[in-house]
Amino acid sequence: MLLLNEQDIRKVFDMNDAIDSNIEAYKIFSSGNAVVPLRQVIAADEGRGNFAFMPAYSSKLGAAGIKIVNIFPGNRERGEATTIGQVLLMDDKNGEVLALMDGSFITKFRTGAASGAAFKLFARNDAKIGCLIGTGGQADCQLEAMLAACNLDEVRIVARDFAKTEKFAEEMSERFKDSGAKLIAYDDANEAVDGADVIVVVTVSTEPVFDANRVKKGAVVSGVGSYTAEMNEIDPKLFKLADKIYFDSKDACIAESADIQIPLREGLVSLEGLTGDIGEYALGEISGRESDDEIIIFKNVGLGILDLVIAKLIYEKAKNRKIGYQWG
Amino acid sequence: MLLLNEQDIRKVFDMNDAIDSNIEAYKIFSSGNAVVPLRQVIAADEGRGNFAFMPAYSSKLGAAGIKIVNIFPGNRERGEATTIGQVLLMDDKNGEVLALMDGSFITKFRTGAASGAAFKLFARNDAKIGCLIGTGGQADCQLEAMLAACNLDEVRIVARDFAKTEKFAEEMSERFKDSGAKLIAYDDANEAVDGADVIVVVTVSTEPVFDANRVKKGAVVSGVGSYTAEMNEIDPKLFKLADKIYFDSKDACIAESADIQIPLREGLVSLEGLTGDIGEYALGEISGRESDDEIIIFKNVGLGILDLVIAKLIYEKAKNRKIGYQWG
Repeated sequence: MLLLNEQDIRKVFDMNDAIDSNIEAYKIFSSGNAVVPLRQVIAADEGRGNFAFMPAYSSKLGAAGIKIVNIFPGNRERGEATTIGQVLLMDDKNGEVLALMDGSFITKFRTGAASGAAFKLFARNDAKIGCLIGTGGQADCQLEAMLAACNLDEVRIVARDFAKTEKFAEEMSERFKDSGAKLIAYDDANEAVDGADVIVVVTVSTEPVFDANRVKKGAVVSGVGSYTAEMNEIDPKLFKLADKIYFDSKDACIAESADIQIPLREGLVSLEGLTGDIGEYALGEISGRESDDEIIIFKNVGLGILDLVIAKLIYEKAKNRKIGYQWG
Repeated sequence: MLLLNEQDIRKVFDMNDAIDSNIEAYKIFSSGNAVVPLRQVIAADEGRGNFAFMPAYSSKLGAAGIKIVNIFPGNRERGEATTIGQVLLMDDKNGEVLALMDGSFITKFRTGAASGAAFKLFARNDAKIGCLIGTGGQADCQLEAMLAACNLDEVRIVARDFAKTEKFAEEMSERFKDSGAKLIAYDDANEAVDGADVIVVVTVSTEPVFDANRVKKGAVVSGVGSYTAEMNEIDPKLFKLADKIYFDSKDACIAESADIQIPLREGLVSLEGLTGDIGEYALGEISGRESDDEIIIFKNVGLGILDLVIAKLIYEKAKNRKIGYQWG
């Protein structure tokens, strides 16, 4: 079994690889080749946290896997990670366990690559200004994906706490100094959104964090943060203004996220007004951007098949390049 | 995360430890502290095999875990293991992944220890003759458990293919040469059963493999092999002759195993005639052996909590003794 930590994965796989991996995963999902049973969740005693178990299989990929994610919010107080994950990858020819890899990083990486895939497929070619709303644990990979998918001059970064935003922007400026993009901390989300070509919203907000009217014509908005019926970060009016509305899984987003539940409930958009899944577009079954003026939303809640596909592709590259620790 | 293979586990944990671990697990199960969701099974393409995912949690133990077991029968033709397993152990204080260990061995070890627990708790103190029916993949740990739980002079070993039985008996005689017991290959199961004090049945038979009337007074029979409605290795009449009938989980055995379904259906025993779960006995809630003449059956199909408890205890010993490979 090949053991791969974040550093190992980084050695063989970059964000462009992750974006391509996600597009492949969306195709597998939309072609019906992904077997993803309902996840099982066990609550730890005294509300300390949850253990979640997420198996997946694709015969087309020739692999099955399971991601185990443990979320323990109280860890923050002790300066420990609140999310701990592992992905186990298995061969569908003989059941061999091929690899174990850092599931927290895989999650963050492929969640960033989801926005990256939407920008790669739907953003205008001349997109120059990015906007990142949120500076939490997922934010750095979202920024990385934006920079990988587009040739941006600047990215505005905005969050509730401006001091924290400045600190984050400073750290990211150092990390992505070769990107050619200027990273700027903003104090006002509407100002940050105004004029942006590609926008990521990745917060835990229960109220919209920007005014839909500030979104410019031709922009692409990736909604990442909301995955419950209480979390609503995207202004519902944006679904009325948008020309195309894609999902990673329309069914999963409608089942889980207030970001789409609210505009549907309020009649701002109808089920018929939802364009479809990004995988259907990648398969050539539905259209993509049709004019430079279109506002496009990509709402995503995460799919188990993303973890499986990226784990398989990372494993193959790492094996070929003899990266990681071979155990057993 | 501590990585433990079979050799590592053997260094810190012997069959007596495994028997004590199982007794602890049965108590946890019968006291209602085991959270064991239904296992999820994904079938690989073209009937090649199955991936099974079995999570478990016990707040009393302070640990959660998952066992992943992949069964690919076709591997046999290529000389590969048909069962591949891993157990992942996690701390319920902070969600940390503590250990990954060989799940195939854990399964075999704790399945042997199930019979060992029954013999330790229910066998006559003067038990001298053992009988092992079956020489498949589980058989060596069953024999090991029998030898650990009782002070036997001889163990008769019997299976369908006498040549294979002789070979197995020879190998086991070498491996357990320090046990003081003589291991003898038998060609006839009824002769092997006749006079045995402790008996393990671990076959894949769909027909009873011995005559209930040959079981001596005072014997303990552990039924391990049957876990489906088609598999029936124990003569149904034995349930009429038995004085006490214990289970690892009465509910699970009745739901899954023909060994108890058939005698119930045929009226050879009633639900009221079933004594109870071994954990209830270990907790002091029901009685155990009450006379040297009693015939006792222990029917077991395996419990997910067994894997969790043994994994936790192995991990603690290995950590203290710095055995295994620390990754990450």
